[in-house]
Amino acid sequence: MRIDVLTLFPAMFSAYLGESILQRAQTAGLIALHVHNIRDYAAGKHRVTDEPPYGGGGGMVLKPEPIFAAVDAIVAGGDAGRPKVVLLAPQGRRLTHAVAAELAAEPWLLFLCGRYEGVDERVRELLVVDELSIGDYVLTGGELAALVVIDALARHVPGVLGDEHAAERDSFADGLLEGPHYTRPEIFRGRAVPDVLRSGHAARIQRWRREQALRRTWQRRPELLLAADLDEADRLFLLTLAREMEPYDGTNG
Amino acid sequence: MRIDVLTLFPAMFSAYLGESILQRAQTAGLIALHVHNIRDYAAGKHRVTDEPPYGGGGGMVLKPEPIFAAVDAIVAGGDAGRPKVVLLAPQGRRLTHAVAAELAAEPWLLFLCGRYEGVDERVRELLVVDELSIGDYVLTGGELAALVVIDALARHVPGVLGDEHAAERDSFADGLLEGPHYTRPEIFRGRAVPDVLRSGHAARIQRWRREQALRRTWQRRPELLLAADLDEADRLFLLTLAREMEPYDGTNG
Repeated sequence: MRIDVLTLFPAMFSAYLGESILQRAQTAGLIALHVHNIRDYAAGKHRVTDEPPYGGGGGMVLKPEPIFAAVDAIVAGGDAGRPKVVLLAPQGRRLTHAVAAELAAEPWLLFLCGRYEGVDERVRELLVVDELSIGDYVLTGGELAALVVIDALARHVPGVLGDEHAAERDSFADGLLEGPHYTRPEIFRGRAVPDVLRSGHAARIQRWRREQALRRTWQRRPELLLAADLDEADRLFLLTLAREMEPYDGTNG
Repeated sequence: MRIDVLTLFPAMFSAYLGESILQRAQTAGLIALHVHNIRDYAAGKHRVTDEPPYGGGGGMVLKPEPIFAAVDAIVAGGDAGRPKVVLLAPQGRRLTHAVAAELAAEPWLLFLCGRYEGVDERVRELLVVDELSIGDYVLTGGELAALVVIDALARHVPGVLGDEHAAERDSFADGLLEGPHYTRPEIFRGRAVPDVLRSGHAARIQRWRREQALRRTWQRRPELLLAADLDEADRLFLLTLAREMEPYDGTNG
């Protein structure tokens, strides 16, 4: 797949992408990533990309012309077709595990990173076909949001993860949060690794991990259980949990 | 405030932080940020930071010793007290505008970035006092999540935003999504800036913006209206919207 990014801060991408799974995905030819500076498409000596909003109120708004010029140039330089233009904005639909998987199936995505107060509304009306938000909080710009979306979707592109099954073990892949993991040493500050994990009994380990995932989801995000794929044993286990525990209050402290 | 970050990939932070509001916050002495490489605290010639999980199943788990050694060294090198240790993990409580504001009031935060399959559970049990998730999706590591949390909380640290009132205009600040913004040119590809924004009538502009924010929130995230701070005029406006419109289906296309 091909991914283009339009930003005023292309340097924010290079360092991150050089050390992430994106590096391997690009080297292996699985994802072709191109980061463009909006300023390169702005007209005039000063290459102005933002101006104050009509109606006042402070802040700056990204102008439409450089963004349209950039997209036109990217489309003209491409093989064929048009990218799906995605604006990163707090008003967008929220990124989820399922949305990331959906985006990974697109042949060509173009992420537009907003900055300052926002982007001129005509960009939204005439150019943007999807808006994504990574969560209910405000960031200085869309750059971090674009990096998050690209990282999350890349895991779903076949071949990007070295271990073919790693994505299937992730939190949310089966609708549950992941349970605990342990590695060496066997005893650390008086706390031992649970016996079952050293038993070598594959079926018991699998059942223990499933129950730990159910327990953590019940404690921390019980609403996820409503949509999770549960079997009879899962339901019985949840019933015993419901009798013994109160839901999690949000902190470890 | 002071922020420390523990990561296996410190270079991911430098490029981003050099160009964001964090740069200004650090220069102005408002936030002191220190990024540490977990590997520097790992023992032995090979400085091993991760090993396979007990019980098998593939992937790698971050070992507890280097993480504890790093936190001990950071505490010993600090002025006094201990940082609040926050793990970035999909199992954490979700970052929101309100959580970002809450974190901005902490004197000392330490963000621990997970990688691979996760972090040894004893780190969670003995060291971590808060766990944060930036959304219901899986990332390659906690680095992007830490950057998102730091960017979101920095906006709430007094003095970090140049314009003292910028944060108050943000989406979510009043419980609503922001409405549209326009800048020059006045007419672009046949679409004109709304007359009201060029009227110079401050009260009408303010009311228009409020109604646009209500409209966008109604269309895209109606559940936010349940918790938003609404007055009588807002309620009447929503009533007219409820009569004319269907909720948003998630896309612009």
